[in-house]
Amino acid sequence: MYSQRIEVLLKSKDIKIGDRIELTKGKETYEGILMPRIELGDTSNIVIKLSNGYNIGVKFEKGISIRKTGSGKNLGNFPERKVKPNAALPTISILSTGGTIAGRVDYVTGAVSWHLSPEEIFFTVPELEKIINLKRSEKIFSVASENMTSKHWIKMAEEVAKELNSGVKGVVIMHGTDTMHFSSAALSFMLKNLNKPVVFTGAQRSTDRGSSDNVFNIICSSYLAGYSDIAEVGICMHGESSDTFSYFMRGTKVRKMHTSSRDAFKVINDLPIAKIWNNGKVEITNQNYKKRAEGEVKLDTSFEEKVALIKAYPGATTDMLNFLVDKGYKGIVIEATGLGHVPTGDINWIYDIKRSIDKGVAVVLAPQTLYGKLNPFVYEPARKLLQTGVIYAEDILPETAYVKLGWVLGHTKKLEKVKEMMLTNYAGEIVDRREVID
Amino acid sequence: MYSQRIEVLLKSKDIKIGDRIELTKGKETYEGILMPRIELGDTSNIVIKLSNGYNIGVKFEKGISIRKTGSGKNLGNFPERKVKPNAALPTISILSTGGTIAGRVDYVTGAVSWHLSPEEIFFTVPELEKIINLKRSEKIFSVASENMTSKHWIKMAEEVAKELNSGVKGVVIMHGTDTMHFSSAALSFMLKNLNKPVVFTGAQRSTDRGSSDNVFNIICSSYLAGYSDIAEVGICMHGESSDTFSYFMRGTKVRKMHTSSRDAFKVINDLPIAKIWNNGKVEITNQNYKKRAEGEVKLDTSFEEKVALIKAYPGATTDMLNFLVDKGYKGIVIEATGLGHVPTGDINWIYDIKRSIDKGVAVVLAPQTLYGKLNPFVYEPARKLLQTGVIYAEDILPETAYVKLGWVLGHTKKLEKVKEMMLTNYAGEIVDRREVID
Repeated sequence: MYSQRIEVLLKSKDIKIGDRIELTKGKETYEGILMPRIELGDTSNIVIKLSNGYNIGVKFEKGISIRKTGSGKNLGNFPERKVKPNAALPTISILSTGGTIAGRVDYVTGAVSWHLSPEEIFFTVPELEKIINLKRSEKIFSVASENMTSKHWIKMAEEVAKELNSGVKGVVIMHGTDTMHFSSAALSFMLKNLNKPVVFTGAQRSTDRGSSDNVFNIICSSYLAGYSDIAEVGICMHGESSDTFSYFMRGTKVRKMHTSSRDAFKVINDLPIAKIWNNGKVEITNQNYKKRAEGEVKLDTSFEEKVALIKAYPGATTDMLNFLVDKGYKGIVIEATGLGHVPTGDINWIYDIKRSIDKGVAVVLAPQTLYGKLNPFVYEPARKLLQTGVIYAEDILPETAYVKLGWVLGHTKKLEKVKEMMLTNYAGEIVDRREVID
Repeated sequence: MYSQRIEVLLKSKDIKIGDRIELTKGKETYEGILMPRIELGDTSNIVIKLSNGYNIGVKFEKGISIRKTGSGKNLGNFPERKVKPNAALPTISILSTGGTIAGRVDYVTGAVSWHLSPEEIFFTVPELEKIINLKRSEKIFSVASENMTSKHWIKMAEEVAKELNSGVKGVVIMHGTDTMHFSSAALSFMLKNLNKPVVFTGAQRSTDRGSSDNVFNIICSSYLAGYSDIAEVGICMHGESSDTFSYFMRGTKVRKMHTSSRDAFKVINDLPIAKIWNNGKVEITNQNYKKRAEGEVKLDTSFEEKVALIKAYPGATTDMLNFLVDKGYKGIVIEATGLGHVPTGDINWIYDIKRSIDKGVAVVLAPQTLYGKLNPFVYEPARKLLQTGVIYAEDILPETAYVKLGWVLGHTKKLEKVKEMMLTNYAGEIVDRREVID
């Protein structure tokens, strides 16, 4: 609700939320759709969605004038679009899981929430008609990125495997961006014998904004899924801030590295697998990738949920580590400093790490710096730490190490075997040092 | 100790650890200093320090021959060097706190430990004689980077203030690299009315190695401390992998971003303040910096230790948050996803964050992506989260937010005031969005 004065004025002019209005204040005139007030905003600010997609709030003051220029009854109604299959085009499936890419402005709060069917996306991106056929286009659930759990990863893996084994050329998964790299890592481990591309994509800017990146990302992802020979799980997002190319980035070596920019996703300790130009050309940028093959994708989704991710930092005691062990956690990833260090001075973690391992808990160190590889053989305290049985996760990203540890512990609780599996390269998560540009 | 066979052979030839030897194995000949066995290494590997500074391990096998080529009695003896002050040069102080830069091979374990006085560094870097006078050159303590705590930050701040107020042009602090960015952030807040440069520096490669970066970093840091007009706390480390230039990076906007590379430190959400070329030229790269001034530096070192840094991620429950609150922690920084999100789905953090704040604990969100700025006004769950009283730390790095929260809570426990101080820009830790290249 707006302030009483505004509500009275709007009523007097028969203007409702969603109507098109023209507002004049001094020398400025704004034309657009009247939006509901933003929940935490000022009740005396009138919010208008301009034609460029941005919302603007105009303070209601003396001398302001408003007139209705159009009715809002069609707001938000996307007609369902049925497209005839074209035998010349590859067939893919698009699965939607939620996130900004599937979002439109929530007219209750004025913010973005999560409901838009893939048919609507298809309507929004008519270019897709000339690129791919859509075997299945379905919202398998609608969950904001930050609310994903391993249960969602398992459901995604199941649905993707079903599609791939039903004969499509590839699958695109629309996903919120915040934790997309956790999900891409999870599916990298859960889909065995992968023989086709599985392409995660999303949007950093909401679909109702002029600057939205959703159309470009969906088009590039569809080219990858339909045409490329890459049989890997990865993320396809903008390679730079403008719509020139996207990168396809291995699901285990990628991380969201910016809160808001369109090219927020970066490959860490590896190269992008491919560059996808806006004309659909897929240019391989890393020859070290898995190619399309025959056969069936197998599911391997066993997962142990009692895994945690914590950080080592100056002044950090072992309180959290001990708490997690006592609480029954089966695995703990510690973001270690530098080459793989934890406090071993006035505060000393070695004893409690040893205690955790003696109790059967897998303790893994991953690089807090993100870039580079751990090495326990340079400094003496790390050598001592290694003797406790802690697992130095090479150059595996902390987020990937967390997902992998849950997956490994879903298969075995024997620490010897956990170590062996953590240090086995299943999905490109460990890059041999010589291959890395550092 | 080496294996018995090796020990017997060495004894028969009167070769002791530290002696210079020549070892021939097949067609290869190695010449260098006999090192003690590496603690976790193979007892049958003979370790030799080659003239390029690297250690090599040679497997002791049939057909190997060893001869002594020199005695090791002078190993590790640096003569103390006294240099006469040069009135034409600026006078600075160098304080050593430990770390790789102050390290040499530990002849007990074969790894790097931490003991080398600044006099020895001065001996190692004779170029310094022509650049600066040294008023004081002292090891104030010898602590590995990962073992620093707020007590060390306070001690550093005290010693630096003493030096600056005694008339030197600037201070260089030699520090381990792992947590150097935590220390530089701490001193940024603890030194008020700063009017001269405070330059942290370190080494990513140990000083006994040919590839060590210590000499270049010390020279660049000394130029900064002695000649620049920058009155800020910052880190001076390699700007690229070779010895062409270093960057001076604001203490609150910098992070170690690589486990091992020489240019591991990167400025996040800002620009480096200056580029220091290998000829000593200091080139300003960010006009937004504080200049030298008259006056006294004041200490403001109150610090609350009961602060923690945790992460939000898929599947993360509020167990850790609740544990920390119940354990009496006064402040918690959460590395939030994306624009500032935590789980609000099947697992929902909002209730427990509210509970923490109601109990008087300051809860701060910082960007897990590192790059970019938080924004609670884009997505509806974040708006609800904001209403709990949580503090959105703008573009403050998680590590800086952790240090700042401890410092703020050292001054007040009133949450209103904590919020006000956290969102006040004291030391360049908050960059206005318009200034950021993103």
